[in-house]
Amino acid sequence: MTELKTAEYGAPQALEQLRAAHPLVQCITNSVVTNYTANALLAMGATPAMVDIPEEAGAFAAVADGVLVNLGTPTAEQRAAALEIPTVTRRWVLDPVAVGSLSVRTALAHELLDATPAIVRGNPSEIMALAGAGGGGRGVDATADSDAAVDAAIVVARRAGTVVAVSGAVDVITDGRRVLRIRGGDPMLTLVTGGGCTLGASMAAFLGVCSPIHAAVAASVLHKVAAETATTSAGPASFATRFLDALYTVRPDGLTEAGRVAESSAVGTGE
Amino acid sequence: MTELKTAEYGAPQALEQLRAAHPLVQCITNSVVTNYTANALLAMGATPAMVDIPEEAGAFAAVADGVLVNLGTPTAEQRAAALEIPTVTRRWVLDPVAVGSLSVRTALAHELLDATPAIVRGNPSEIMALAGAGGGGRGVDATADSDAAVDAAIVVARRAGTVVAVSGAVDVITDGRRVLRIRGGDPMLTLVTGGGCTLGASMAAFLGVCSPIHAAVAASVLHKVAAETATTSAGPASFATRFLDALYTVRPDGLTEAGRVAESSAVGTGE
Amino acid sequence: MTELKTAEYGAPQALEQLRAAHPLVQCITNSVVTNYTANALLAMGATPAMVDIPEEAGAFAAVADGVLVNLGTPTAEQRAAALEIPTVTRRWVLDPVAVGSLSVRTALAHELLDATPAIVRGNPSEIMALAGAGGGGRGVDATADSDAAVDAAIVVARRAGTVVAVSGAVDVITDGRRVLRIRGGDPMLTLVTGGGCTLGASMAAFLGVCSPIHAAVAASVLHKVAAETATTSAGPASFATRFLDALYTVRPDGLTEAGRVAESSAVGTGE
Repeated sequence: MTELKTAEYGAPQALEQLRAAHPLVQCITNSVVTNYTANALLAMGATPAMVDIPEEAGAFAAVADGVLVNLGTPTAEQRAAALEIPTVTRRWVLDPVAVGSLSVRTALAHELLDATPAIVRGNPSEIMALAGAGGGGRGVDATADSDAAVDAAIVVARRAGTVVAVSGAVDVITDGRRVLRIRGGDPMLTLVTGGGCTLGASMAAFLGVCSPIHAAVAASVLHKVAAETATTSAGPASFATRFLDALYTVRPDGLTEAGRVAESSAVGTGE
Repeated sequence: MTELKTAEYGAPQALEQLRAAHPLVQCITNSVVTNYTANALLAMGATPAMVDIPEEAGAFAAVADGVLVNLGTPTAEQRAAALEIPTVTRRWVLDPVAVGSLSVRTALAHELLDATPAIVRGNPSEIMALAGAGGGGRGVDATADSDAAVDAAIVVARRAGTVVAVSGAVDVITDGRRVLRIRGGDPMLTLVTGGGCTLGASMAAFLGVCSPIHAAVAASVLHKVAAETATTSAGPASFATRFLDALYTVRPDGLTEAGRVAESSAVGTGE
Repeated sequence: MTELKTAEYGAPQALEQLRAAHPLVQCITNSVVTNYTANALLAMGATPAMVDIPEEAGAFAAVADGVLVNLGTPTAEQRAAALEIPTVTRRWVLDPVAVGSLSVRTALAHELLDATPAIVRGNPSEIMALAGAGGGGRGVDATADSDAAVDAAIVVARRAGTVVAVSGAVDVITDGRRVLRIRGGDPMLTLVTGGGCTLGASMAAFLGVCSPIHAAVAASVLHKVAAETATTSAGPASFATRFLDALYTVRPDGLTEAGRVAESSAVGTGE
């Protein structure tokens, strides 16, 4: 991998556009994070709609500006609904929660990956499992550093023709050609359920106003900045409240990329 | 429509009665707002129970003091459960979330409307869609002012023999004969998911101690006052916490209707 | 019942072990409390995973350190998933929410009870219903004092060979031989939905590092202490946030059992 150089992906402009457009974001997501996700989308300026039953999901995706397909608690109805999404839109994010050893979601994740999501967002274990480079984690926890999943991310990005975002202390984002690293955030976000799931939803929101790689970067920068704004020693529930508040109060010009976003080439890495 | 006159619907007494009776409120509601709704009901003094599977839903409705049927994320089991409600009680509220263009819930909403809910609560787009006066909004957002839906509300109220409540900056409530307007609240409530869904649940709670029109007014006044009490510039998540706290701390005599509730006649309007 | 004596069940050591081991806790739980439960588990130091669909549930339970089966909103898929749990592990907690008059969950609760959970946690009405000593409450509310359910708890504990925990102002825990009473807490916890459900999840977490009776006591003491730490007059939503924060900030040596946990013999009581 070549040396890191600072990169500008227009995160401030993306947030400004999002707040002007209020993109309609459809979420098929897990039962644990529906509320937090919807509130996060509202706070940042998007319009959430959790339309996740068969027959309605595809019809709605045709008018939505971005769609999240998160496999956290994939009921049979949600699985059927998820498969309707790629038939009507390209602006969707796949979040393959806990893929690897769990049979139902793993089969579905691979089927959905073949249907070309705009973005795949996961933790290192999940991206490595998708690439066939590991057996997956113990569910939702990240058992590996995001740097350990860079090669796997490049493999998945090239094979599926998608942008892959690996979440961690440093977020890694690649389209198979470039590798971006986004620094910052706050470790307490790992103690709030749905930190990652909500990031996937934000990427779907930015798909309403940006290209996939710009959407992934803008969402990542926004979450890192909001987490830093939310920092508190009171505990994770106070932090969770402050994080949502920060998604609302952060100004576009607060999303400075200098010193936060670094780019390198993926040439010579991956498969 | 004749001129507005101030009206008294006994909101303070209704809240006092609710807190003495702790009405049992059954909710069949969407996965996004179950937690917030249950906490809102507990905070105001009611006893929530989310019994939403077939066979159990009807049996439970027979002993519940009020029932909410909210179509936000209507799984097949919830749809079957919803249809059990009108067979055993009249004290139920229909919240036709996002009806209009979405086929499954729209068909169900019309079937439920024919079964005569005590109250129908929705945003302007939803009430207009029920009246056949528009194609519905882009899901959960209100794309019209509540005043634009007054005629539609009167039509639905008369046709279904129900009270219709249209939520907005001004809430409009009608039984097809009278039109009430309730002022107040805080715009930040629109940035908290489930603001409207929770209002429907509160109406179901007040059905345990009031007639439908009094229940709709009491719930509307309570939510407006609680939202005003919760006002903060910290952001929507802090506001959401403060709103629930306010449902608990507000005293019955804080629900003054003078200057807040205005009544006019619906004669000569509607269909 | 013989006289109460103070008892030591190693709650401080249990919390210390839990925070070192980060036990993986699988939850099949109701849609109302999934988010609050996951956040509570993260805050106290455990690793939650809501794997609740058929085929995956049993496979996951084989690697989980503790499992919660909560019957609050038991969809058909969750019911099938629940039945997979006892086939692969003994480290699971049954929370028979609202059993008694509701047919579907009551039948399932008895079937699961026969499959020998490590711990059964419920409110007095639920435990009395399981023992056949009452028709159950009006759903999720406790209509009886925990002391009124002591005999029922002993009956269930002996019949099923399990530890039974009855929640209330005083928590009662029995293995059919000993009866423990844990004092403390804060009444505002009854105004937060999922206070009891989350306690059941904590017991499942402690099953990853303790025997059933020690796990039940440690979870009970932790929740009592956290509730006392969270005490506030602001209202139940502020309390809910402070309670989660307290699960994170409480130190193991804060879980003093002296003056809080009292033991007596169950000889001569029960059936």
